[in-house]
Amino acid sequence: MIGAPMIGIDWGTSSARAYRLTPGGAVLERREAALGILNVPQGGFPDALRSLAGDWIAAGARRVLLAGMVGSRQGWQEAPYVSCPAGLDTLAGALVRVPFAEADVRLVAGVSAEDAAGVPEVMRGEEVQVLGVLAEAGPDALLCLPGSHAKWVRVERGQIAWFETSMTGETFAALRGHTILGRMMEGDAVPGAAFDAGVARAGDPGGLLHHLFGTRTLALFGRLAPADAASYLSGLLVGHEVAASLPSGGHVYLVGTGPLMALYARAIMLRGGTAMPGDADAAAHGLARIGERAAWT
Amino acid sequence: MIGAPMIGIDWGTSSARAYRLTPGGAVLERREAALGILNVPQGGFPDALRSLAGDWIAAGARRVLLAGMVGSRQGWQEAPYVSCPAGLDTLAGALVRVPFAEADVRLVAGVSAEDAAGVPEVMRGEEVQVLGVLAEAGPDALLCLPGSHAKWVRVERGQIAWFETSMTGETFAALRGHTILGRMMEGDAVPGAAFDAGVARAGDPGGLLHHLFGTRTLALFGRLAPADAASYLSGLLVGHEVAASLPSGGHVYLVGTGPLMALYARAIMLRGGTAMPGDADAAAHGLARIGERAAWT
Repeated sequence: MIGAPMIGIDWGTSSARAYRLTPGGAVLERREAALGILNVPQGGFPDALRSLAGDWIAAGARRVLLAGMVGSRQGWQEAPYVSCPAGLDTLAGALVRVPFAEADVRLVAGVSAEDAAGVPEVMRGEEVQVLGVLAEAGPDALLCLPGSHAKWVRVERGQIAWFETSMTGETFAALRGHTILGRMMEGDAVPGAAFDAGVARAGDPGGLLHHLFGTRTLALFGRLAPADAASYLSGLLVGHEVAASLPSGGHVYLVGTGPLMALYARAIMLRGGTAMPGDADAAAHGLARIGERAAWT
Repeated sequence: MIGAPMIGIDWGTSSARAYRLTPGGAVLERREAALGILNVPQGGFPDALRSLAGDWIAAGARRVLLAGMVGSRQGWQEAPYVSCPAGLDTLAGALVRVPFAEADVRLVAGVSAEDAAGVPEVMRGEEVQVLGVLAEAGPDALLCLPGSHAKWVRVERGQIAWFETSMTGETFAALRGHTILGRMMEGDAVPGAAFDAGVARAGDPGGLLHHLFGTRTLALFGRLAPADAASYLSGLLVGHEVAASLPSGGHVYLVGTGPLMALYARAIMLRGGTAMPGDADAAAHGLARIGERAAWT
């Protein structure tokens, strides 16, 4: 089977992104489906995999690597967390095989860490993205993965050495959808003067909970338009995250896709750092690199 | 009419608290109704007042003072904001009369300020509570009013000199009700070890958005029980608020009622301050003191 295409799936909570990959990591074909683990019934993962990639398997791709929440307690089967430092060899050596007749299917383990105060940190899925960009980002890098649970990851000698998570995206959604701040907002957060003002505000004294209230009072006094309020709130939250995770500037490799990338790049720049935009196929490349090192049957 | 009882109403968004008061400020009778401004139809405020206190008016109380969101754009009529510094005489001189046949009915103005960065601050209703406790708290005091939009108020020579608001309570409700953190929570926030741990955590490096995620990971690793998670989250948020508003300890006069009072007193103590519990009738006493100085017809 050496040389035959491998299948990699970045399988999260709300969607699954499947890739048919060459052994060298080139993406031959890609698919995305709303088959996130919350949409798969109990016992339904084998059929979900067939629906996602059954034709690729039938055509000869008998090695399937799954990463993300599919390896959580709510997924196909729980895969353990490996502790930092964790690199390609650690993850390739910790794959968990799941029963599936037509192919060798394995789950990538999550990665855990502890922050300076001993509070645990976890990731599932982001580790393949991080390892997927190291060819570009280099073996010693600071990476940021924006999102609902945004992650900042320190890579040292090609290993995930340390990371921390901020609930920035999920907090934005909860504040916008379920507090008085959302009532005055029209449209989405976009780069521009209002976002920049929120980032600048994050550097003022008073703390985030106080700064949030300013979104309301600035609107009340006509100094923040409804079309700008979401951008200002996003700037506040991303600004607080960047201030905490990048206290003295530095170079950041941004991993991900979509509108958050431009917002994070801007906030990092305003806080004195520099940001390099990321590889949109980071997960596919990381899955391929782990798959190359795995002991398949 | 001098010497006749006055009516004071602390009329907020979700409820109205009405007091029949002696000129000296003693509470003769009190009522609370779910007649908050969100529950009063357009043009319905005269009838709502009759329903709240029509019998008191008919019995001779012809002076009615209203404070709170009833004076907002969404209330009976919009009353202006007076700027800090604002004391009893400022507020007594800025009352706004509203049309009502059976009595002289007036709205108390809100109070506005700017924080160090020039961002506006507003209060409506809290000013009567603050002025109501000055007999106890003294003419130079730092006050804290816990709540959805918690306020810290600096009083100097009997005047509201400066204040700032934190969206602590509303953020807690949004995070609990509409993020992954709420799924693991049972019960309410109560004083105890879990609350204390959240307050201590607020002093760690990393920022609030990072600390929030620890609520999830501590639960995931079995280090935070479902019954303790709401207390821990409350400790995080109140701890961040107190750290921002009371950076170097000091004495705080707490104004309000209910379970938040004990939580704030504990957080203030853990952050090196001292807290004095407040007067439960602060609003009634403030309304009486403003009413004493007003130029009624």
